[in-house]
Amino acid sequence: MRTNYCGNIDASYVGQTVTLCGWVNRRRDLGGVIFLDLRDREGIVQVVYDPDLPELFDTANSLRQEFCVKIEGLVRARPEGQINKQMRTGEIEILGKGLEILSKADVLPLDFNQENSEEQRLRYRYLDLRRPEMSDKIKFRARVTSAVRNFLDENGFLDIETPILTKATPEGARDYLVPSRTHKGQFFALPQSPQLFKQLLMMSGMDRYYQIVKCFRDEDLRADRQPEFTQIDIETTFMDADGVMAVTEEMVRGLFNDLLDVELGEFPKMSYAEAMQRYGSDKPDLRNPLEIVDVADLVKDVDFKVFSGPANDPKGRVAVIRVPGGASLSRKNIDEYGKFVGIYGAKGLAWLKVNDKDAGMDGLQSPILKFLSEEVATALLQRTGAETGDILLFGADSYTVVCEALGALRLKLGTDLDLLQGEWRPLWVVDFPMFEEIDGQFHALHHPFTAPRNMTPEELAQAPGTALSDAYDMVLNGVELGGGSVRIHNQDMQQQVFSILGIDAEEAREKFGFLLDALKFGAPPHAGLAFGLDRMVMLMTGSESIRDVMAFPKTTTAACPLTDAPGFANPQQLQELAIASIVKDSE
Amino acid sequence: MRTNYCGNIDASYVGQTVTLCGWVNRRRDLGGVIFLDLRDREGIVQVVYDPDLPELFDTANSLRQEFCVKIEGLVRARPEGQINKQMRTGEIEILGKGLEILSKADVLPLDFNQENSEEQRLRYRYLDLRRPEMSDKIKFRARVTSAVRNFLDENGFLDIETPILTKATPEGARDYLVPSRTHKGQFFALPQSPQLFKQLLMMSGMDRYYQIVKCFRDEDLRADRQPEFTQIDIETTFMDADGVMAVTEEMVRGLFNDLLDVELGEFPKMSYAEAMQRYGSDKPDLRNPLEIVDVADLVKDVDFKVFSGPANDPKGRVAVIRVPGGASLSRKNIDEYGKFVGIYGAKGLAWLKVNDKDAGMDGLQSPILKFLSEEVATALLQRTGAETGDILLFGADSYTVVCEALGALRLKLGTDLDLLQGEWRPLWVVDFPMFEEIDGQFHALHHPFTAPRNMTPEELAQAPGTALSDAYDMVLNGVELGGGSVRIHNQDMQQQVFSILGIDAEEAREKFGFLLDALKFGAPPHAGLAFGLDRMVMLMTGSESIRDVMAFPKTTTAACPLTDAPGFANPQQLQELAIASIVKDSE
Repeated sequence: MRTNYCGNIDASYVGQTVTLCGWVNRRRDLGGVIFLDLRDREGIVQVVYDPDLPELFDTANSLRQEFCVKIEGLVRARPEGQINKQMRTGEIEILGKGLEILSKADVLPLDFNQENSEEQRLRYRYLDLRRPEMSDKIKFRARVTSAVRNFLDENGFLDIETPILTKATPEGARDYLVPSRTHKGQFFALPQSPQLFKQLLMMSGMDRYYQIVKCFRDEDLRADRQPEFTQIDIETTFMDADGVMAVTEEMVRGLFNDLLDVELGEFPKMSYAEAMQRYGSDKPDLRNPLEIVDVADLVKDVDFKVFSGPANDPKGRVAVIRVPGGASLSRKNIDEYGKFVGIYGAKGLAWLKVNDKDAGMDGLQSPILKFLSEEVATALLQRTGAETGDILLFGADSYTVVCEALGALRLKLGTDLDLLQGEWRPLWVVDFPMFEEIDGQFHALHHPFTAPRNMTPEELAQAPGTALSDAYDMVLNGVELGGGSVRIHNQDMQQQVFSILGIDAEEAREKFGFLLDALKFGAPPHAGLAFGLDRMVMLMTGSESIRDVMAFPKTTTAACPLTDAPGFANPQQLQELAIASIVKDSE
Repeated sequence: MRTNYCGNIDASYVGQTVTLCGWVNRRRDLGGVIFLDLRDREGIVQVVYDPDLPELFDTANSLRQEFCVKIEGLVRARPEGQINKQMRTGEIEILGKGLEILSKADVLPLDFNQENSEEQRLRYRYLDLRRPEMSDKIKFRARVTSAVRNFLDENGFLDIETPILTKATPEGARDYLVPSRTHKGQFFALPQSPQLFKQLLMMSGMDRYYQIVKCFRDEDLRADRQPEFTQIDIETTFMDADGVMAVTEEMVRGLFNDLLDVELGEFPKMSYAEAMQRYGSDKPDLRNPLEIVDVADLVKDVDFKVFSGPANDPKGRVAVIRVPGGASLSRKNIDEYGKFVGIYGAKGLAWLKVNDKDAGMDGLQSPILKFLSEEVATALLQRTGAETGDILLFGADSYTVVCEALGALRLKLGTDLDLLQGEWRPLWVVDFPMFEEIDGQFHALHHPFTAPRNMTPEELAQAPGTALSDAYDMVLNGVELGGGSVRIHNQDMQQQVFSILGIDAEEAREKFGFLLDALKFGAPPHAGLAFGLDRMVMLMTGSESIRDVMAFPKTTTAACPLTDAPGFANPQQLQELAIASIVKDSE
């Protein structure tokens, strides 16, 4: 129906007659001439209708925003003064010789020139996606998936589909359930990830697997979560952690290079322990120069229980963030940061301003100054490298609370004070603990199929609390892009891990019997990783929400304002599925 | 962990030391030397362990089938007599210098040397997929999807994901439902296809869309159906039926050329009416030379109600298949074919053998010969081109029954008598009726969003029974590879079609309100098509079932013997979902 895309016509087409289809982005009547901005997926071109063809002119004059039209016309150079070098089509315009209205448009429910509510944008998503800033994100996402696939295809990975109707998965979050009609009373679960299937594929000898695949979690949604999301899911055989990190790092480096012209360089590796120590987070944003410095040893004898208590507790932590130039923070600012760390369980935010580093105790200002000897104060300045004009902000509590509170404070200070340096700062976080202990019960930090580093099942059983796993997370600018691990390929080890996690033999058999069976028949060493595609594209496009990089996202209550899903079901169908709705009137 | 794939080592590696990982396909002890066939995804290589390294030899001697091992060794040429030119690795063997058992294997529950039950194969799918004939299919499938994506990417199609948790779709089959926790009493449906979303993407200006996407139907399963299946889903804007057929035909031709080295040539187009007339099917297998020939006009005056009734009924059909050489069919054969057509509603199978074409009525043999005048008999022979030695098989009933019965009989005869000619015979079937009328009610032959050919809404309202749609099916060897249509992009037309289908305004608003709304805002002309990927790969790999080209298929009762899905749900989770199981004891 057309000869070209609107957005692709440049000066090289001058003199040619073209046929274009698209939408009226804008119509103006200037001095008796109609100017149309005609838009399609590739961009906008200007079309001009002169009054010397009255019928055509009248049709052009009747067009309104978002009418869908087909035009024919002659490409000509724009007059000198009207050239727009910013646009590919900015040196030309099209003198209209034909015009057909393919489809009219009512007045739009969205105003493209101002902010619209998210509800309205999702209800009229097909209009929202016509905005170039939105369609550019969707187009970019397609380029990302295409580049990922090309890389993985070229590296011998096989795209293999795994089931969506499957068994409840062990990732921890709530499963979406699907009632079975043929097995009444029973349910499928939608997968939280294809974890076990991809491991089975390695056991089947597929060697290298990938899939760009929908996963599902029925969680209470936050800004960056969706009930269905997409993973770039990867698994390899006969490859260790370094091998998996090397190939996936190469992939991500290639993506940034090819699609954003950004050279990420080699990703540094940092242990989980170091990340928590220096940044209070297992996904540190390295663009932020602030670091957390431990000072428990310096304050364990001070006469201030808030410090000395945690400093003398093996599970406590006392640490400091030094903010260069932070002495200029107002009391009000500091109070607000105090409230902020309260969100993470901190009971307050002690501070110390260095008004004059060379003036001894007189140069320092702090509500807790009276508790500090000059010796301690000097040691604190020295340890943190404080200079005149800086502020020290203290965290003193359990190790976890201090990490979370100062970790979050560090990020907030970085943004508030505009401290971020560099555009892209990737790293690998490695050497995670196998388990975290909560109320005397061990939980898998990754998932129960992650292998420990260099340990026998017996060694693991003796020291589960200190065991490190062979897991790795790729982190970029404080966002976890992906994570993975070497998997257990030995039945004894898998049973040992289940046992440490408090999964008894019967439960293990019921939930994971097929995996334990598969480990009996020559299961190969294997390892893998999964990236969150939505988050990756969000980061690469500088979007504020993953909703902006999904064509049809759901609201934070997991609904679709466009289609009105979910909806009520046909009672007969519920009967066939052998389920009944038991909603209470109060709900 | 390795330097090469087993299957890739050929004579060019002679003299090199390699490290390989894989599975013991076979171990033999020949004259005090251990021969291992070591297998990985790429193939099998022979490894030899001599007794002069006793420890290594003992380990090699302890290996059993499907042990997973890592070996190191020197590639050397095989002795003259042992060369196998059929295998890439057949000219070399590897003299083992190292051997590590990575994982042992119990005695396998599948016997790779004989047929195993489908239940066993699915329960131990990870072992079943180790068989090269199975892994080859999965590898081939990955090559197909990769080639499809490359073609579509290069042709400007954007891979865009559409939701899996969505609203009940109108394709007709039963939806899988997913209870919503946040909207209690309500349900999502899993999509039977992304039909409406892809249309909305065209309305959003995405121009060309594709997705290789899971679709879901809760149907009673047949051999070639699965509850979840995969579509290559395509939609285009500003393109007509011929345009869509051209680009998708080019894609399929390319696939066959690149992956099978088959040149399909240009696909002929055939109208639905012609396909039903000549082949009794809208997906004719053109490899089969038998055709159905209409003879109602010849027999409408015979004194045999079985023929004259349908021959004089405007909704009846009387037709013949001439089977060359079929006069040799026994009475028993013919009786069996009579039973066979009974499955399709035919009340019997009249037949006429041409024992001697030149002997007049004496040369003919038939239970119904007494009803035929010589004139009629001669006309029948002439119309069907019958020769001595042929048989004519008659269908006389309603149009539908005759098409279905003779259509099926034609296929059966083709197979039974080994008549198929040529390996690949593609075609397009076009000019489908818009609607089929069942008991006075019109139903959409494709779906309710299919546009009629060259009609206004008013013209369509006047003659729905004879209206043709702008739909097209790609058929290959009697299998529908894909189907699609030009879609309605005009609100009045869409409402007219709903009205003809008996969907009143309120129901239309409730089910498709968002589509009708979208048609108000400059909806562009658009058209698309969807291929069944599973069936396409099944056909291309010569597999007997789509289960063979899916990594983890379900049984015919929609269960997974591997994971034991579906399973019983946690009662607390059902409570959260506000549903109750109401299975009766008898079930």
